[in-house]
Amino acid sequence: MKIDSVDFFYLAMPEITTAADGSQDALVVRVTAGGHTGWGECEAAPLPSIAAFVAPMSHGACRPVSDSVLGQTLDGPDDIWRMAVAVAYNSMDLLQAAHTWSGIEMAMWDLLGKARGVPAWKLLGYERSYPKVPYASVLFGETADVTLARAKAIRDDGFRAAKFGWAPFGSSLEGDIAQLDAVREGLGPDGLLLIDAGQIFGEDVDAAALRLDAMERNRVTFFEEPFHGSAYLAYGGLGQRAKTVRTAGGESAHNRHMAEHLIDFGKVGYIQIDCGRIGGLGPAKQVADYAVKRGVTYINHTFTSNLALSASLQPFAGLRDHAICEYPTTLRQLAVDLTTSHLVRDANGEIGAPDAPGLGIEINPAALELYKVDVEIIVNGKSIFRSKAI
Amino acid sequence: MKIDSVDFFYLAMPEITTAADGSQDALVVRVTAGGHTGWGECEAAPLPSIAAFVAPMSHGACRPVSDSVLGQTLDGPDDIWRMAVAVAYNSMDLLQAAHTWSGIEMAMWDLLGKARGVPAWKLLGYERSYPKVPYASVLFGETADVTLARAKAIRDDGFRAAKFGWAPFGSSLEGDIAQLDAVREGLGPDGLLLIDAGQIFGEDVDAAALRLDAMERNRVTFFEEPFHGSAYLAYGGLGQRAKTVRTAGGESAHNRHMAEHLIDFGKVGYIQIDCGRIGGLGPAKQVADYAVKRGVTYINHTFTSNLALSASLQPFAGLRDHAICEYPTTLRQLAVDLTTSHLVRDANGEIGAPDAPGLGIEINPAALELYKVDVEIIVNGKSIFRSKAI
Repeated sequence: MKIDSVDFFYLAMPEITTAADGSQDALVVRVTAGGHTGWGECEAAPLPSIAAFVAPMSHGACRPVSDSVLGQTLDGPDDIWRMAVAVAYNSMDLLQAAHTWSGIEMAMWDLLGKARGVPAWKLLGYERSYPKVPYASVLFGETADVTLARAKAIRDDGFRAAKFGWAPFGSSLEGDIAQLDAVREGLGPDGLLLIDAGQIFGEDVDAAALRLDAMERNRVTFFEEPFHGSAYLAYGGLGQRAKTVRTAGGESAHNRHMAEHLIDFGKVGYIQIDCGRIGGLGPAKQVADYAVKRGVTYINHTFTSNLALSASLQPFAGLRDHAICEYPTTLRQLAVDLTTSHLVRDANGEIGAPDAPGLGIEINPAALELYKVDVEIIVNGKSIFRSKAI
Repeated sequence: MKIDSVDFFYLAMPEITTAADGSQDALVVRVTAGGHTGWGECEAAPLPSIAAFVAPMSHGACRPVSDSVLGQTLDGPDDIWRMAVAVAYNSMDLLQAAHTWSGIEMAMWDLLGKARGVPAWKLLGYERSYPKVPYASVLFGETADVTLARAKAIRDDGFRAAKFGWAPFGSSLEGDIAQLDAVREGLGPDGLLLIDAGQIFGEDVDAAALRLDAMERNRVTFFEEPFHGSAYLAYGGLGQRAKTVRTAGGESAHNRHMAEHLIDFGKVGYIQIDCGRIGGLGPAKQVADYAVKRGVTYINHTFTSNLALSASLQPFAGLRDHAICEYPTTLRQLAVDLTTSHLVRDANGEIGAPDAPGLGIEINPAALELYKVDVEIIVNGKSIFRSKAI
């Protein structure tokens, strides 16, 4: 098969807020080859990611992503790998390329899986897809009371694990302690409790460490992204000060090396990979293999649609002992409507990568129209990108 | 002063080739505040970088760079630092933000320096600007004979140092040995010889190490970017196998941490920072301080105009012992024409960061018009970016 087309669909809610809620817009990618279609989703700012696909070449190591994709052969996983290497080399100086490529790469696994009638996780080398315990992934409430109610609702909804994250966490020590106590109270004594600081401490290990006592008293399992994604030494420093809580991170990795370095130098206990950023399923699977070797737990990072969720579950679907997964439960309507199929909990309260061809998720064409953001990019009088109707 | 405007000028040669020559296009940034003007240059794909400035917000951690810049106070270096922190946090999920911000940050130092009548290197804390020995930075010839002639011409032109890089280096061991011998022959026995592999070996330490004998026989001082910019362990592995040649890298660092990790984990002997990528002069100066502490030599990375060259000289202008600098000598006409002032070698064959306000480089308005690429970006019927006349 030859790659015939790569189309981007930029979708957005009518109003976008400053909440750290990644489901407010979406960049969906459709790849066609040999009469088959695959779908992917970039976890990225849509406009620069589209620009990275269509931009005029700057020089040999700064070519648009399209140069390494359109017209290429896609007959198996090796072809995806070959294109990944080409994008990394040909678009070396184009920083946004990794994000753009991620959604395309994802769509290629979906397409290949559909063409062969097998799930993407099987193409990645797994024999089966093990169920995972989903943690309800939500934002902190503005006050501890709101958070308490949110945590109770999550427990009442049958979740055995929950992650609370981002603002107002980090704004005051007293406030953070109140938030941590509230989450534990709301979840009850048995719920697995996870905290996401959303990089609020920059690289200030002392400031982050002030929260450890309250975390350990409340039996927090991991403390996610206390620091800038590249500040490996800060992660390592905090890890040394913790007794029971482990550090977690990795969502900002835009290549395999960054995730592996966070394991080796940042000493995280949990490595969290977003397939919409790291370059897709291929490098994510390499990180999963590396995590197994290093005794670190692999987890998906997902805060968008069920298409992205399925994609991010594939790389560790076959790892029975890596048993928890991120599961956004408060998606904006756009992200809900984007797919007609949804990953819902089974009788055990678990979810898993679908046992269906490709990513196993059906796209809802009506959503692509309903939430469409019309973009046109004109360079020297020539239209080089224009949003398409589905 | 308040930031009144940030304008981008996308320039390009009429023809862009696949040569690894970064002077074929340019993204120039003009910042105005309090009646003063500063100029900067992003080392980046222009279109995605412009998009990163004007893109609609995706969510709180994925805001356009403009959100953290326009209308902000700019009265001193602390304000630049505050905006840098804001961009890193507010545009966390917008990968291209670092490249976009770099050119803006550069322009702010230029503007502040002009407003105060002092060079940027003085604002960075240096007492004086020491001259550097420029190495003529060129691409390998297609054959060893072409390279030989190029090296001879560089010696005849009075250069005491030269760097040859990129294709065809890496395509065959025999070819590479012939190229290395040719460069040494052309430069003569005394010339400082540097080699840039342009990441051609990916992370294959064995393949890169096969070139070490011929490098050491030809007294190569450093072996630059043998590997992917994030493959720290490969750099470390190669360094252990070398006897006299040192490894070099860092141009792909898009934040301070990445450069510091390349020093600590990649064990490079030379750290090469491009101010048009790492976030401007501020983080580059931090890396220079770190290099001094770690006993590593700091060098600029520059393959574009003299505006970018001056900017990249500022962060280590005051380091007397960090005495060589990259100096592109085969710039395309666009990059030559962009500035009316040029950094030319003095009687000792040396150059330095100018002893003049800001970056000390005058922009040529005619070049902004002559090489202009007209861009318009329209989102939902509204024009959110349109190239301006100067």
